[in-house]
Amino acid sequence: MKFIITDSYEEMSTVAGQHLLGYMYQDRRVNMSITAGNTPLRMYEQLVPQVKGKSYFDNVHYYNFDEIPLKGTGEPGVTISNLAKSFFTPAGIPSEQIHVLDETNYKTHDERLKADGGLDVMLLGIGADGHFCGNLPDTTDVHDETVAVPTTPEMKEILLGEVGGDASKVPDFYVTMGPKAVMQAKNIIMFANGKHKAEIVKKAFFGEITKDVPSSILQLHPSITVILDKDAAELLTNI
Amino acid sequence: MKFIITDSYEEMSTVAGQHLLGYMYQDRRVNMSITAGNTPLRMYEQLVPQVKGKSYFDNVHYYNFDEIPLKGTGEPGVTISNLAKSFFTPAGIPSEQIHVLDETNYKTHDERLKADGGLDVMLLGIGADGHFCGNLPDTTDVHDETVAVPTTPEMKEILLGEVGGDASKVPDFYVTMGPKAVMQAKNIIMFANGKHKAEIVKKAFFGEITKDVPSSILQLHPSITVILDKDAAELLTNI
Amino acid sequence: MKFIITDSYEEMSTVAGQHLLGYMYQDRRVNMSITAGNTPLRMYEQLVPQVKGKSYFDNVHYYNFDEIPLKGTGEPGVTISNLAKSFFTPAGIPSEQIHVLDETNYKTHDERLKADGGLDVMLLGIGADGHFCGNLPDTTDVHDETVAVPTTPEMKEILLGEVGGDASKVPDFYVTMGPKAVMQAKNIIMFANGKHKAEIVKKAFFGEITKDVPSSILQLHPSITVILDKDAAELLTNI
Amino acid sequence: MKFIITDSYEEMSTVAGQHLLGYMYQDRRVNMSITAGNTPLRMYEQLVPQVKGKSYFDNVHYYNFDEIPLKGTGEPGVTISNLAKSFFTPAGIPSEQIHVLDETNYKTHDERLKADGGLDVMLLGIGADGHFCGNLPDTTDVHDETVAVPTTPEMKEILLGEVGGDASKVPDFYVTMGPKAVMQAKNIIMFANGKHKAEIVKKAFFGEITKDVPSSILQLHPSITVILDKDAAELLTNI
Repeated sequence: MKFIITDSYEEMSTVAGQHLLGYMYQDRRVNMSITAGNTPLRMYEQLVPQVKGKSYFDNVHYYNFDEIPLKGTGEPGVTISNLAKSFFTPAGIPSEQIHVLDETNYKTHDERLKADGGLDVMLLGIGADGHFCGNLPDTTDVHDETVAVPTTPEMKEILLGEVGGDASKVPDFYVTMGPKAVMQAKNIIMFANGKHKAEIVKKAFFGEITKDVPSSILQLHPSITVILDKDAAELLTNI
Repeated sequence: MKFIITDSYEEMSTVAGQHLLGYMYQDRRVNMSITAGNTPLRMYEQLVPQVKGKSYFDNVHYYNFDEIPLKGTGEPGVTISNLAKSFFTPAGIPSEQIHVLDETNYKTHDERLKADGGLDVMLLGIGADGHFCGNLPDTTDVHDETVAVPTTPEMKEILLGEVGGDASKVPDFYVTMGPKAVMQAKNIIMFANGKHKAEIVKKAFFGEITKDVPSSILQLHPSITVILDKDAAELLTNI
Repeated sequence: MKFIITDSYEEMSTVAGQHLLGYMYQDRRVNMSITAGNTPLRMYEQLVPQVKGKSYFDNVHYYNFDEIPLKGTGEPGVTISNLAKSFFTPAGIPSEQIHVLDETNYKTHDERLKADGGLDVMLLGIGADGHFCGNLPDTTDVHDETVAVPTTPEMKEILLGEVGGDASKVPDFYVTMGPKAVMQAKNIIMFANGKHKAEIVKKAFFGEITKDVPSSILQLHPSITVILDKDAAELLTNI
Repeated sequence: MKFIITDSYEEMSTVAGQHLLGYMYQDRRVNMSITAGNTPLRMYEQLVPQVKGKSYFDNVHYYNFDEIPLKGTGEPGVTISNLAKSFFTPAGIPSEQIHVLDETNYKTHDERLKADGGLDVMLLGIGADGHFCGNLPDTTDVHDETVAVPTTPEMKEILLGEVGGDASKVPDFYVTMGPKAVMQAKNIIMFANGKHKAEIVKKAFFGEITKDVPSSILQLHPSITVILDKDAAELLTNI
């Protein structure tokens, strides 16, 4: 486990992007799984001009790791829409390099990943509740590969926000790579910024490995790098 | 996770030894952790003539992963004595390539491993109770690195056998790499033979990941190979 | 460059086979190029029972590195016939794992190799004249990738022997991976046995890099292992 | 061989720096050899703020690949002075991470590199005459490891410029990693910018491998990346 403590969100974003580029420049097919959400927004802004129109990144394939379908709409889900907006579209990533995960294909996701050579790297964020991908507390089991997670009453509110506030679009389930599927990645990068992440970062990487803090299982991965801004790292006194 | 089902204990031994040799032949320092016990006995018999006196294996370093001290004797512990007898001595491994773990140095074991570049590969057996290394049910926690495990009353009987039947030598604790320390290895090989291992093999690799079956955590490792004879594999109907 | 000096042809064969097995056991597609000829005969005898019928080697793909066509016959060439007889047929290698090189496809060989991920390892012999693959003195240039080599009058005699003594079958050219193509392999193993190879081994690995000794270019490869019996190594006084 | 054609010197510098960072971020000792001269100047300017004071780069070790001693002065040589000025000093690299090559230790340079685990990556420039490191036309042989190159009358003028114009400081020899030593690096990056490099770039990577163009030997390396601005790439019509 390597910790990289940066001075700011800006620097965290740069360092995380450089980690991805280090993989992307390799002279072979590279399979990556990158996160949607707020944490990566600045990183994507920095990466777009470096990636757009560059044929030397034709070797890079992107695999989604979770998805919230918009029920009854036939429209692209929340995750892919988010990634398209913040990165795939502005960076002009060809669709044949984007491997969508959704409610129709999640059962064969692990198989496809294995056939394609596995993930070289996953870039993950961490939720204030300790979740990674769609692994919220009390949802998936540690031995789950890619699975559907039924929507519980408590979860409805969160999902309502994610689908844009229209209750009719809240799905009955979302899909996610479970802990076991994520742990199969050859390398994992987790990043976080802000004081509101400081406590969960400490718990996740220096506390017990427990279902209550889903990300804590990542302590067991033999090749994980954690990139933080100083706010998110402020409770880590031992490194 | 790759499964290799062999026809016999003899073949399992050969295949496991060839896995080790594949690492050992590399042109750089190679750090390995190999198991004592009954499972590897035939493998060591096969390896001894291939390793003895071969200077081209000077790059291979051996690190113990657990030890049962012989209380109050100052003598070498159970694990190192066992490994010395079955492999290190007949194979003539120079002592500077053997890195003992014991009750005096276990607190710095993880640090030393990290400084030496980490373990390239660990070869582990599995107990009928699902244990690996000294991680028996209800002993270590999944986030434990190398630790001392206090001897409980129930454990005394087992340890009495291990130390040769002399109750005065039963130690107050033994030391072991815990689950988190083992998971840091770049590659893991687990092997098992015999019908008496069939049930635990099925549980460990196809059941839930649970403290009751300590080895089940190894399902999460991104590079693990499981080598079985057909008896140990007889309940695995899905591969 | 790593040198492994073994005691006998038998041991050289075992060690070379173990090197191959070390690659073959990996849990991903493995691309290998292995040699025909006399040197590997005992190695193949040893490998056949270890490989035959083993589904855990379904990940291993074999690519030929040279071929002598039988002119006007439409029959398989000398190299593939030789490999089929000594290894592919007795080991029962499925044809979809065998990638033949011949006079009809050599122009796209490098491209196919690149698309398939490149060669993980090549196992090469060395001729008494210093040749490797079909790179005899005064044939290919060091910057040649896979090429056709026109048959010169001097070469006719050699080829006459190779095609079984029927002059009408001597081809106008043979095909081979050239030095540049071979150097692209991630790892190279060269092996040799017998006193009649001692002089060329010394020249190739400890002499000048020169066109007169084609194999000498392999000194420049960053990951090459040379496996010798003691007879072939008898002039190497410095290792 | 991977070619990366960038739009400008600025972008070439960024991309080359990102390649280095991709290695530097790894969680293990990383051994690099980086070039002095004009080509890397902007790259170093970009890297300095990213590297300065960052303890997470404590794992990176720098090895010089050539040196021009200042005769009779006892002062640091031309290469290390140049690198210190453009990178090591402004970036605050601790001296224990800098492994100087000079006239006193060049004979053991290859041995030290091997003992330290070899070079993970070399970043090389290319001279208009095709030289790399101190391998000018008609100086080193392709099988040279790290060697001393005697100063010829023709070379005196070049060296006079390098040592600052004081003829008394022109050394009788300089030292350099020869072609064979460079080829042992696990990965090579070569970069070039400007129209004045366009012809030699074409010759070096698409022409014959010849002593007249020393860099042409790098075509044989199994892992080389060439980073160019569009001016240096303007004669490469086939990629």
